[in-house]
Amino acid sequence: MRYVMKDKFVYKFGKTTEGNRNLKELLGGKGANLAEMSSIGIPVPPGFTITTIACKRTIDQSLHWPDTLYDQVVDGVKHIEQEMNMGFGHSNRPLLLSVRSGAAVSMPGMMDTILNLGMNDLVANALVQQFGNERFVYDSYRRFIDMFGDVVMGVEHRLFEESMTALKREVGATSDIELSAEDLKVLVERYKAIYRKQTGHMFPSDPFEQLTLAVNAVFSSWNSSRAKKYREISKILGLVGTGVNVQAMVYGNMDTNSATGVCFTRNPSTGEKKLYGEYLINAQGEDVVAGIRTPIPILDMQQRMTEVFDELNRYTSKLEMHYKNMQDIEFTVQQGTLYILQTRNGKRTGEAAVTIAVDMVNEGLLPKQEAILGLVDPEHIDQLLHPQFSSNQIGETELLGRGLPASPGAAVGRVVFDSKEAEQAQQKGEEVILVRIETSPEDVGGMSAAQGILTSRGGMTSHAAVVARGWGKPCVAGCSDIVIDDKNKTFTNGVVTVHSGDWISIDGTRGLVISGKKDREAPKLSQSYYTFMNWVREYEPMVVRANAETPKDAEIAKKLGAQGIGLARTEHMFFGKERINIVRKMIMAEGESEREAYLKALLPYQKEDFKGIFRVMESYPVTVRLLDPPLHEFLPQNEDEMAKMALDMGMTIQELQRKVEALNEHNPMLGHRGCRLGITHPSITQMQTRAILEAALELREEGVEAKPEIMVPLVGNVNEFTHQKSVILAEAERVFLAFNQRIDFEIGTMIEVPRAALTANEIADEADFFSFGTNDLTQMTLGYSRDDAASFIPYYLEEGILMDDPFQTIDKEGVGQLIHMAKELGRISNPTLKMGICGEHGGDPRSIDLCHELGLNYVSCSPFRVPVAHLAVAQAALKQAKENEELCV
Amino acid sequence: MRYVMKDKFVYKFGKTTEGNRNLKELLGGKGANLAEMSSIGIPVPPGFTITTIACKRTIDQSLHWPDTLYDQVVDGVKHIEQEMNMGFGHSNRPLLLSVRSGAAVSMPGMMDTILNLGMNDLVANALVQQFGNERFVYDSYRRFIDMFGDVVMGVEHRLFEESMTALKREVGATSDIELSAEDLKVLVERYKAIYRKQTGHMFPSDPFEQLTLAVNAVFSSWNSSRAKKYREISKILGLVGTGVNVQAMVYGNMDTNSATGVCFTRNPSTGEKKLYGEYLINAQGEDVVAGIRTPIPILDMQQRMTEVFDELNRYTSKLEMHYKNMQDIEFTVQQGTLYILQTRNGKRTGEAAVTIAVDMVNEGLLPKQEAILGLVDPEHIDQLLHPQFSSNQIGETELLGRGLPASPGAAVGRVVFDSKEAEQAQQKGEEVILVRIETSPEDVGGMSAAQGILTSRGGMTSHAAVVARGWGKPCVAGCSDIVIDDKNKTFTNGVVTVHSGDWISIDGTRGLVISGKKDREAPKLSQSYYTFMNWVREYEPMVVRANAETPKDAEIAKKLGAQGIGLARTEHMFFGKERINIVRKMIMAEGESEREAYLKALLPYQKEDFKGIFRVMESYPVTVRLLDPPLHEFLPQNEDEMAKMALDMGMTIQELQRKVEALNEHNPMLGHRGCRLGITHPSITQMQTRAILEAALELREEGVEAKPEIMVPLVGNVNEFTHQKSVILAEAERVFLAFNQRIDFEIGTMIEVPRAALTANEIADEADFFSFGTNDLTQMTLGYSRDDAASFIPYYLEEGILMDDPFQTIDKEGVGQLIHMAKELGRISNPTLKMGICGEHGGDPRSIDLCHELGLNYVSCSPFRVPVAHLAVAQAALKQAKENEELCV
Repeated sequence: MRYVMKDKFVYKFGKTTEGNRNLKELLGGKGANLAEMSSIGIPVPPGFTITTIACKRTIDQSLHWPDTLYDQVVDGVKHIEQEMNMGFGHSNRPLLLSVRSGAAVSMPGMMDTILNLGMNDLVANALVQQFGNERFVYDSYRRFIDMFGDVVMGVEHRLFEESMTALKREVGATSDIELSAEDLKVLVERYKAIYRKQTGHMFPSDPFEQLTLAVNAVFSSWNSSRAKKYREISKILGLVGTGVNVQAMVYGNMDTNSATGVCFTRNPSTGEKKLYGEYLINAQGEDVVAGIRTPIPILDMQQRMTEVFDELNRYTSKLEMHYKNMQDIEFTVQQGTLYILQTRNGKRTGEAAVTIAVDMVNEGLLPKQEAILGLVDPEHIDQLLHPQFSSNQIGETELLGRGLPASPGAAVGRVVFDSKEAEQAQQKGEEVILVRIETSPEDVGGMSAAQGILTSRGGMTSHAAVVARGWGKPCVAGCSDIVIDDKNKTFTNGVVTVHSGDWISIDGTRGLVISGKKDREAPKLSQSYYTFMNWVREYEPMVVRANAETPKDAEIAKKLGAQGIGLARTEHMFFGKERINIVRKMIMAEGESEREAYLKALLPYQKEDFKGIFRVMESYPVTVRLLDPPLHEFLPQNEDEMAKMALDMGMTIQELQRKVEALNEHNPMLGHRGCRLGITHPSITQMQTRAILEAALELREEGVEAKPEIMVPLVGNVNEFTHQKSVILAEAERVFLAFNQRIDFEIGTMIEVPRAALTANEIADEADFFSFGTNDLTQMTLGYSRDDAASFIPYYLEEGILMDDPFQTIDKEGVGQLIHMAKELGRISNPTLKMGICGEHGGDPRSIDLCHELGLNYVSCSPFRVPVAHLAVAQAALKQAKENEELCV
Repeated sequence: MRYVMKDKFVYKFGKTTEGNRNLKELLGGKGANLAEMSSIGIPVPPGFTITTIACKRTIDQSLHWPDTLYDQVVDGVKHIEQEMNMGFGHSNRPLLLSVRSGAAVSMPGMMDTILNLGMNDLVANALVQQFGNERFVYDSYRRFIDMFGDVVMGVEHRLFEESMTALKREVGATSDIELSAEDLKVLVERYKAIYRKQTGHMFPSDPFEQLTLAVNAVFSSWNSSRAKKYREISKILGLVGTGVNVQAMVYGNMDTNSATGVCFTRNPSTGEKKLYGEYLINAQGEDVVAGIRTPIPILDMQQRMTEVFDELNRYTSKLEMHYKNMQDIEFTVQQGTLYILQTRNGKRTGEAAVTIAVDMVNEGLLPKQEAILGLVDPEHIDQLLHPQFSSNQIGETELLGRGLPASPGAAVGRVVFDSKEAEQAQQKGEEVILVRIETSPEDVGGMSAAQGILTSRGGMTSHAAVVARGWGKPCVAGCSDIVIDDKNKTFTNGVVTVHSGDWISIDGTRGLVISGKKDREAPKLSQSYYTFMNWVREYEPMVVRANAETPKDAEIAKKLGAQGIGLARTEHMFFGKERINIVRKMIMAEGESEREAYLKALLPYQKEDFKGIFRVMESYPVTVRLLDPPLHEFLPQNEDEMAKMALDMGMTIQELQRKVEALNEHNPMLGHRGCRLGITHPSITQMQTRAILEAALELREEGVEAKPEIMVPLVGNVNEFTHQKSVILAEAERVFLAFNQRIDFEIGTMIEVPRAALTANEIADEADFFSFGTNDLTQMTLGYSRDDAASFIPYYLEEGILMDDPFQTIDKEGVGQLIHMAKELGRISNPTLKMGICGEHGGDPRSIDLCHELGLNYVSCSPFRVPVAHLAVAQAALKQAKENEELCV
């Protein structure tokens, strides 16, 4: 055949191979990979790939194939026939083919696989002759008609199903397996009739006609509305079409010398360097999946099929060496001949990921940088830090419901519905799970006392979720499968009702609520973990800080590698037992002088809080955010507590209620909070400033040189910042005068209101640092209340309106654009401005990647996310370095 | 004296005048104006102005005057002495001076006036000799010491006051007037002692020393912290300093041939061309202000002081001709000699403004453009459109409280606390004022039935305020002076308690709540009004549309000149009596098919709504916004209504309550609303689309060719828009098919989420128009909930953190920047994109000016603001044209 290179549409693989893994754009990912395996001598069933260019040309010409394509396909089939010593459509050793799509990027909406292509009555007869297994042959035949009809011709699969159900009824069979070869022969005829009726054509018996139609179906699926939509949403541009892979069928169910199986090159649970997997003799891949027969451990193969096993070992090692990663491999043995059907990087646990990475570097398989970038995901690290259930198996009846995996880890305890009860239980040494419709800052005592938290309402960034993640405490949030009855202290999923005191287990890693006590394992950090994290720290361009507001949290954060505190929320401290009453009186105070008296009473507590954190963090910087939430969050919301408070304050409950109501807001998120509080009540800012600076000065005597950074929240206008700055500076001077010594400290601001980003040049003139509060910035830029967005975000994700939950991963186009603007404007005004992010996104790898791209100085996240963030930071840097290198080459 | 021009620091005025009104930067506004009056022959008491440059040089040289300044000042004093035939510090005909500051822009924090400068014991004696009025002289003397001490030397005014109080006690006087000349002589000595004690200096008796110190005090006040802060906040740049005006004192209280008075060149209430004002014979300006004597109408002067009156008439006419505006003039007659002390543009009522503008154009005094630009404020027009109280006088005991002037006009009625009651009262023909803590969409029936609305909570853009302004109905909002007791149906201001059924009057123009029935006047639109508005329409580059959702509102809007509907909120229609129950059932529906059934029932109602509006607006475009508010707004919130609804729906009240609670949101502003509703429930969008298009098609038979524009609310992501657009287009095709005819319509979006502005290029690719929803855009960009911001915005305005309420005038730096970005990005993608704003800012003149500057196509506002907007649009255009002209000259 003669054609110029640009008209080469078919690339063969097998013993003769024309492609390789670099030709993804031309051959699609699957095609390139099959070629690659073939070219390094892996026994892949022979086949060929039709190029993406051929797809494009065909589509452009209204499904007319380019001139030489048909000839090249025929030539490709010949290539398979030769390598298999079989004939396509022949009555002697008939060749059957599989046809599947494969673009450079995998995408939904593309055509499914068609197996057993080439089958017709003649071929079926020949196969029966060849293998003597009539039932297998006709079962394959009817499956082929079903698949071809459905996938290629759009005949509804339902129609074939219904026909089979009818037949089963006729012959009195209850399952497919009970159908005999004769029954299946009847079914083949009925399927053909269905096909005829629905398409208006005879079922094509010519194998080449089958192939042509199948290839065209693959081509057409490139422009299916689902695939187009996916490419549009995912912004996949520049791809011209899909490849088509045509490959010889092989069978593991021909005799006892045949088999099929899957294996991992290393243990995906532990990382141990040992072949791991299972197989079935005389079986097809489907049998493994269907669970009809129990597979055998792969190592048993050594005795049963010694030669094949050695071969398999050799090839799997080769694949691992070649791909420099643990491989997940599918294989089939047909009458003693081993075929590798697929290889891909294997999924693994966190423990395995770290072990494999460290081992592979030590084995000299790849350098540290590549191991960090390619072998461990940030989520692997996260997994390692939380206790897990020993077994992943959960019975149907055990499962009470599914919610959001809000904070990973496994927790077991008795159900309580009240924070007070949780605290009492803790004092008695009991383990409880706090179950609430949703949590509020009043619940933090109970949340802290509980083993885990379960809510029926709220999203991934609801109060419960955020607090729980901050503490590394398992939490399942927004579990709408259950309905909580606070009054009667029960919850139910409609079937099972759980009472207060019953044991439940929650899996925050997977979002499961389970009845009873499940066994757990504590996290054991291996030597590999520490080795790996040390490597990670060698490649870090950004600092990782933690969000923490207690010495205990700060301690954990520091142990896990935090290089400072990026966000200490002072309001959490206000909820302490001795304090909340003073705080409430302070809020209800009539006039500034009464308020100041209460603030004076709070001062020693706040000072001790800060001393505790400063002592732990030593000379690491600690960013303290001034009071942020609206004041009504501190007031009691239920009648009992109100009555108590009214009594305590010498007012009637009605008076108190009126005051509480007056402070309630329609949209508290956009209300009287943040610096708006400090501006209308400067005495609060003064007290907090004094507490921070006195704490730092008093610690000098202990030899600790604290580095406080005071952060003004919710600034949207430079005048707000300068107001608060001058209050802080004036109070600082008073403190310094009293102590007769000074201390260096910084004053900066959150950038969390869109207007702050838009006017960042003005604010940067005055501020020492910016901390992007991406939670609030997301809420305001997108107009999503994170407490309410659970009602539409899941729907948006499903419909492809959003690609990611913007509270998990920073919305690059909107929020990211504002951060970029703020950074550019800020650095122009103030070239030494320090910038970072705090908030939930600080622990999200993709958001961290964006922060690195934007050139921020640090990220700050929950203590338990610190190692995750370290890895993400290193990966961001290594990824960029690699891209730069590739650009230079 | 010799100096080069750049060293000319003193500009004289009087018979010899060196300056003019164009020298504002050099002489300050006051100085330039005094020079201007002098130069056109107005008898101004002679004086001189020290330049702003002299101020700057003096400040730069640490209060050392530039070389020749002292000589020039002495020369200036000589000029006054000559023109007045008096001597500064002389014992014969002593000259006294006034000293006052005057920068190019008036600003708070600058030095106050000092009168009677030049006074000392010798001069006092001479004055007594000259005028024979010892009491007058020593009263002037003690006032001078007080003023000088306070203003120049910073001696607290309080100390002088206390000294006087002590003296009055000693002599048994109860008021200042009872103090004799002898007493005042004593007081002068005591004042001098206070001065001595406080400053450590003798009171300066040398007139030139007094003058030097006073001038320096004015110079220094330029850099007072208050003035600096004001310049900083107001972004007043480029001014170098303040001028100082030194002027001869004149006295209207020397004899019966002396007088003092104020007059307007035309009647400021009616605009009638006739001198209007009042005067006092033998009196000082202070006497008029103090109200001790009753002034005489100015026209009486014609008989009493014929010559002076003729002179006054001549000069006031001249000033009006010169300034081309109605003037407010202060004058003094000293022994038969007329002095004009000040002239400025006179404040006037709306009626007067329009009449004067039309008259002056007809008189040929100035061209239409200048009259539109300079003689009528948009608020004048607003005033004309609402009924007012006949008298502005309100007794102390009548006034129940002050709130926000939320919607102008005067209303009188009996108090009701319940919307239902209001509706019943209306049916009986009774007039009521609806008094609520705040209103919600459930109250619209009652609000519509009431004469006016009073709320104790909520800001200028609260629900009550917005709805009331939309209807041109008087409203006082956020009146925190009163406490409402819903249960007992009373409200109280702590002194007076008002019961249900009592009469009250509210003044929405001034924000007053008054007990009893006050008389009112209906607005009468004069011929001048129509003439003026016709002129306005000649200079309009932007279209003015109205926000209206009923045929009645649309009718009003059209009559007032609306050129389309920019915002028809469909949700208001959902509250109609027959509809709300269907709407509620639709919301509570289980599953889409049940929901669709209820939507089908709503369809005819919505269609009728749209037909009504389209019929009124004929071929003017009508923008219909799809359902916007969160669904829980439609559900009953009180127990009675819930019980009724539960019964109606066949569910228990508990079930209903649970459903209602499940729909409640923490931050409804940022919740499940806007297009998020239409996306999760496409059937709502379908129903509304069908109602709009069927209405338009059915109206064809009536010969009305409607121009519907369908607007998708709260879009933040182009995918949201394309989703809704495809739902709309698909439904439209179904409608067109059924009618077998098509209609042109547009599909556009609100830009009200910051992210929409940031990604406007993507959205503009798909949209026919953008309508900037500046209410929500302000809420999200600034992070202010308009329902809650009343707790801090007033404080922010007072502290100078904000210059304007951002819900009244668009925040140019933040929100304006986003609009600008959206416009630029939008026009790049879609050069024919139509853009406008709707929402409260659409009726605010300064926001309209910004819209014109940004190049938007239209503004849309409440019906009653339409004429206001017309004027603002014309003014914006004329202002720009004038600026361009000035740039060219």
